[in-house]
Amino acid sequence: MQLKRLSILCDFYEAYNMATPTRIGLAGLAVMGQNLALNIAEKGFPISVYNRTTSKVDETVERAKNEGNLPLYGFHDPESFVLSIQKPRVIIILVKAGAPVDQTIKTLSSYMEKGDCIIDGGNEWYENTERREKEMAELGLLYLGMGVSGGEEGARNGPSLMPGGSFEAYKYIEDILLKVAAQVPDSGPCVTYIGKGGSGNFVKMVHNGIEYGDMQLIAEAYDVLKSVGKLSNDELHQAFSEWNNGELQSFLIEITADIFGIKDDKADGHLVDKVLDKTGMKGTGKWTVQQAAELSIAAPTIASSLDSRFLSGLKDERVQAAKVFKSCGVSDILVEQSVDKKQLIDDVRKALYASKICSYAQGMNLIRAKSAEKGWDLKLGELARIWKGGCIIRAIFLDRIKQAYDRNADLANLLVDEEFAKEVVERQSAWRRVVCLAITSGISTPGMSSSLAYFDSYRRERLPANLVQAQRDYFGAHTYERTDMPGSFHTEWFKIAKQSKI
Amino acid sequence: MQLKRLSILCDFYEAYNMATPTRIGLAGLAVMGQNLALNIAEKGFPISVYNRTTSKVDETVERAKNEGNLPLYGFHDPESFVLSIQKPRVIIILVKAGAPVDQTIKTLSSYMEKGDCIIDGGNEWYENTERREKEMAELGLLYLGMGVSGGEEGARNGPSLMPGGSFEAYKYIEDILLKVAAQVPDSGPCVTYIGKGGSGNFVKMVHNGIEYGDMQLIAEAYDVLKSVGKLSNDELHQAFSEWNNGELQSFLIEITADIFGIKDDKADGHLVDKVLDKTGMKGTGKWTVQQAAELSIAAPTIASSLDSRFLSGLKDERVQAAKVFKSCGVSDILVEQSVDKKQLIDDVRKALYASKICSYAQGMNLIRAKSAEKGWDLKLGELARIWKGGCIIRAIFLDRIKQAYDRNADLANLLVDEEFAKEVVERQSAWRRVVCLAITSGISTPGMSSSLAYFDSYRRERLPANLVQAQRDYFGAHTYERTDMPGSFHTEWFKIAKQSKI
Repeated sequence: MQLKRLSILCDFYEAYNMATPTRIGLAGLAVMGQNLALNIAEKGFPISVYNRTTSKVDETVERAKNEGNLPLYGFHDPESFVLSIQKPRVIIILVKAGAPVDQTIKTLSSYMEKGDCIIDGGNEWYENTERREKEMAELGLLYLGMGVSGGEEGARNGPSLMPGGSFEAYKYIEDILLKVAAQVPDSGPCVTYIGKGGSGNFVKMVHNGIEYGDMQLIAEAYDVLKSVGKLSNDELHQAFSEWNNGELQSFLIEITADIFGIKDDKADGHLVDKVLDKTGMKGTGKWTVQQAAELSIAAPTIASSLDSRFLSGLKDERVQAAKVFKSCGVSDILVEQSVDKKQLIDDVRKALYASKICSYAQGMNLIRAKSAEKGWDLKLGELARIWKGGCIIRAIFLDRIKQAYDRNADLANLLVDEEFAKEVVERQSAWRRVVCLAITSGISTPGMSSSLAYFDSYRRERLPANLVQAQRDYFGAHTYERTDMPGSFHTEWFKIAKQSKI
Repeated sequence: MQLKRLSILCDFYEAYNMATPTRIGLAGLAVMGQNLALNIAEKGFPISVYNRTTSKVDETVERAKNEGNLPLYGFHDPESFVLSIQKPRVIIILVKAGAPVDQTIKTLSSYMEKGDCIIDGGNEWYENTERREKEMAELGLLYLGMGVSGGEEGARNGPSLMPGGSFEAYKYIEDILLKVAAQVPDSGPCVTYIGKGGSGNFVKMVHNGIEYGDMQLIAEAYDVLKSVGKLSNDELHQAFSEWNNGELQSFLIEITADIFGIKDDKADGHLVDKVLDKTGMKGTGKWTVQQAAELSIAAPTIASSLDSRFLSGLKDERVQAAKVFKSCGVSDILVEQSVDKKQLIDDVRKALYASKICSYAQGMNLIRAKSAEKGWDLKLGELARIWKGGCIIRAIFLDRIKQAYDRNADLANLLVDEEFAKEVVERQSAWRRVVCLAITSGISTPGMSSSLAYFDSYRRERLPANLVQAQRDYFGAHTYERTDMPGSFHTEWFKIAKQSKI
């Protein structure tokens, strides 16, 4: 029997032109899947690939040939695909989140054996991963939910990877992930075992929420510089290029500089001016905001970036509203203010950086709150480390965050880290100038102004929440605490007020 | 048989000292339940009441006696309670949302008969109501989820009622609700059939979200007047009392004025200054924010009020943060600015009013989005009408909202109603002055500034979202639309930028 089985397998490998079984499999060959598979193959790990629409398989095999005869083997049916992988088998799936993941798991798992493992590399809702991990466990299979960031380019050349779930399964392929992930000098590969359950997905979700925040803050910087400062696209290109040599150095600042340099190929002028001001979204930003509310974490910068996407989508309504208010004498820019461009660029850079600190503080505290709730024991500094390369939010800034958590792993908020506190204090005047300039000009900077409000609320020993609590006790007998003695109190505010009115 | 049954019933009524069966029942006699039951009895509808902890029953019966020998009958066991009500029986339950509601339904429904009806008057998540409506239908019972607003006082003397679910069941008790609800001259009783399913709960949820927003905006007005304007509590009392005679006339402004007038009975000074600045919450604000994200509705004013409650809860962290920043030379109030108190009070009033318009616009649009999703066909103007009295957000302002929807039921946003647009335009300079004054003083006004950003985004024909979409296309090939031609486009930004760098 053993010999017979071996012989069948030999025929199998021969038929597929393989010397031995492959090391790993990947199912789902849209562009992210193709690129990640090619990346894995390029790092020297023979890989089997499969896609339900088989033309994608052939396309990937063709790319593997063209991109250096990489050890990538294509399969048109799921059974051959699964059988071609060495045991314990590990299969990464990269299909649309939700039902397609369940369908793919169902198909593949029927050919898999005890101890094999499935890794979902999509932007999946963490609870789905936890459900599937349990379902897989019943079949004796292991499961990981792995956030993959870096877009197409990152997937091909080195993404940031956030695997969570079965530690045993992580260990199966740790050697692959360490080589496939982005490599950052002095801080290593951008991958670490995140934690149990859906933690990998959750962390990736917050990463995306932070990404929303970064993009919104950059858009506001652009808006103030262009609409108030009257910078041309060339000047914007110049400003962002310079910023990318300093504290703001990051992938998003770099591509923003690039964008301002690109001419339209269909008409005169720069392409960015022809792009419609409507922003799409895919759900992770929404989840981040909903989770922040669920966990009682203030995340106004991230929330304002989501709201801005919603409002961007109401293009027709905005065109109408602009008409209504213009007819009332309110123009787009309320007052043309003469500004020193150089000073403004400097101020906006500082406002952007200070706002960014608030945004990351919110994201990190959201992750910590979830970690506490779920007992995931996540290491915030380690997350900052694996975001230093490969992913969309990669930035020199993340090194400062890592250092902050190295100094104090229990830091209550990034804002009170000694270095960040110093940086915010140095920038706060510029920050306030920019937001006020925007407000008096009639330009909205929801991300920067909500970040500033976050800072001013967080650093405030006494907020006006005493009034809110007094109101709650007045109409709902919700009780209140006192500043000068312990205990819970209720006052008959209405009765007292009524008496004093008589 | 019929005669025998009648004779048993006669004995039953005699035992309970009742001439006939009661008209309606109410289970759950915490303060809201007690007060609503007494209100119903006072309007001339004999009512049976029940509570699991029977002392509450006796307490309510005692109150009914003392408050005018009201026709209220107490029962210590659920069966007698249910049997004492005329058929088709209607029972309002007022217990804690979630599992206690399910438990109460289970207990009561076992004695109920086909065609009877249960009304949940709590702040329940609308999907729970929809689930229960289905479960009840299987037993032949009808179900309503009815939002009740107005706190203890409203429940006793006239709340705003938001019943949703079975229209048939609503009709059973419409006569009661019309009398029990708050009565507003010229606009009638504060109750209407909201719509199918969980619409009553959903509308009440958004009402509460708007309430969060109102309270936060008032707290910010207080903060600016007190911290920047240096108004004393007496001056605050005076200012809010005056505001309550104008456009801001409302329950919340009225009780705020009252609060500033109340002296501490345990120490010197005013009580409000001794109340700890930590605000509690019960979930409806959180749900509102989560639903806004779910439905792609920007609701930054409501969200900032929720965030402010979260940040108020971090009292210890704030005390620490204040120390950190004070040691860096950043004091609570950054610069003491000399302001004209009278001018400031006037400006803050205008800022508060303009912000309020934005907040209600968000809440109304959230309700409309849900109505469209669920096919509830909710009438926004009618909701404004039933909020004019009884509830916590009752205000003269709601009449203006009703008029706006009377003018145009399909109004895209309250901001573009001709009257509201005019009001905002008249107030915008003051609004911008107040927010900038707060920012330069280091006082956070998250509600006012996010409202202003909402306004400035909504009225803007062209937002900087073109940059965000260009970024998304750059790193994720998410495509973009163009301003000058139809279609969906993708550009190889990276390749073009790379070429131009060579």
